[in-house]
Amino acid sequence: MTAVQVGTLYGISVGPGDPELITLKGLRILNQVPVVAFPTGIRGKPGMAQQIVEKWLGGEQVQLPLTFPYVQDFVLLAQAWQVAAEQVWHYLHRGQDVAFVCEGDVSFYSTFTYLAEMLQQLHPECIVQTIPGVCSPMAAASALGMPLTVRDQCLVVLPALYVVAELETILDWADVVVLMKVSSVYEQVWQVLERRQLLNRARVVERATLPEQVIYENVCDRPTLNLPYFSLLIIKVTEKEPGTGDEGKLNLGS
Amino acid sequence: MTAVQVGTLYGISVGPGDPELITLKGLRILNQVPVVAFPTGIRGKPGMAQQIVEKWLGGEQVQLPLTFPYVQDFVLLAQAWQVAAEQVWHYLHRGQDVAFVCEGDVSFYSTFTYLAEMLQQLHPECIVQTIPGVCSPMAAASALGMPLTVRDQCLVVLPALYVVAELETILDWADVVVLMKVSSVYEQVWQVLERRQLLNRARVVERATLPEQVIYENVCDRPTLNLPYFSLLIIKVTEKEPGTGDEGKLNLGS
Repeated sequence: MTAVQVGTLYGISVGPGDPELITLKGLRILNQVPVVAFPTGIRGKPGMAQQIVEKWLGGEQVQLPLTFPYVQDFVLLAQAWQVAAEQVWHYLHRGQDVAFVCEGDVSFYSTFTYLAEMLQQLHPECIVQTIPGVCSPMAAASALGMPLTVRDQCLVVLPALYVVAELETILDWADVVVLMKVSSVYEQVWQVLERRQLLNRARVVERATLPEQVIYENVCDRPTLNLPYFSLLIIKVTEKEPGTGDEGKLNLGS
Repeated sequence: MTAVQVGTLYGISVGPGDPELITLKGLRILNQVPVVAFPTGIRGKPGMAQQIVEKWLGGEQVQLPLTFPYVQDFVLLAQAWQVAAEQVWHYLHRGQDVAFVCEGDVSFYSTFTYLAEMLQQLHPECIVQTIPGVCSPMAAASALGMPLTVRDQCLVVLPALYVVAELETILDWADVVVLMKVSSVYEQVWQVLERRQLLNRARVVERATLPEQVIYENVCDRPTLNLPYFSLLIIKVTEKEPGTGDEGKLNLGS
């Protein structure tokens, strides 16, 4: 009996929400694999990544929902990753490739990291390959019709849930700050921005690039906002005009 | 005579280098427009964005190279942007759409920002739309086979040319630091990292996702490196294992 070659686990970035923002490479591999895995949604609704790729999936492909509980308890999480890794390994060890789809970019705060690490610990022969994609800060900047960064600007990205305390320090020197998944800390962030007179430099984007996208160009009068999970806040701390340093509008001569 | 509707200027992100990393949306619009603009290369070689889209262009599309000098002088730059804006406007005001292609993401340190701002100042009726794409830090992380950020990690992106002095401060608290276009300051950065014993947490990627891609997983013995313009350095300041805080490998139970 010939040994079966182990399948590859692909981590495919499917972008921020608009299915058309997957890359050609991501779609090509998604179309090739016999098994497509994704995190299960909550309350019976499909998860974001699953929704994004729905229109790209073929009827003959196995769909493999994997459960990652929304908890902080590391023991529970590790158990869930281990179960998910074995579900994926079931196909890989028979030589079938599996694509795990991730909203945004697979290297950027993604569940895929835990799955892949767990799988490689349990089955070191496992082959993993990731396909980069469009992350939500870039998508939000395009939705806002403004650059995220220009010239010598320094960008800081914070996973907002953990870091309101650090925000003050960062605002002292960063040029552009992106707070990911800002919903649960929005009110605290708003207070900080008000105190520092930065409210007029903050913008919020909900569900960037989806049909339900909502943009708040101005949050000055919005100390509270009922935001969904996929929402982010961009602060242009130093509101430079492109190319001008701080001198204001481009000088076209007189 | 009926007024002609002004064309749209699209800023299309074409990704880090591999032509297959353009998005479906980017390629669809690229295929639709009659005019494709891009920065001219240097020394007679096509520029990066032009190289990336070469295989996607149709013979009937007008190719419009725009010259942006590699200088810091703002007056010279503004003159160049103004000339470029008028070259683009020549087509837009006749109702033809123009796609300006940008390597990486159009909102992320891109020449497009200056062109679009200048055009909107000169011709406020101009319509601009940008299509987000894959930026090089995400592509480099995938090339390295590692996550860029996990959990509560804070990411800092610096355009390396300007900021070696700030690097020390940032290393005091950031979890992950990306130095874009690191070639011109690599030696100084290496000294900083050596002094802080962070060399074993630094990796360099040249020309991510291109056939000429080079990866340095270990720079401990490389105080100098002859790097191309498109090279970046990633420092995992706090080298956490995913999901574990700082406790090391995932605990699978005993």
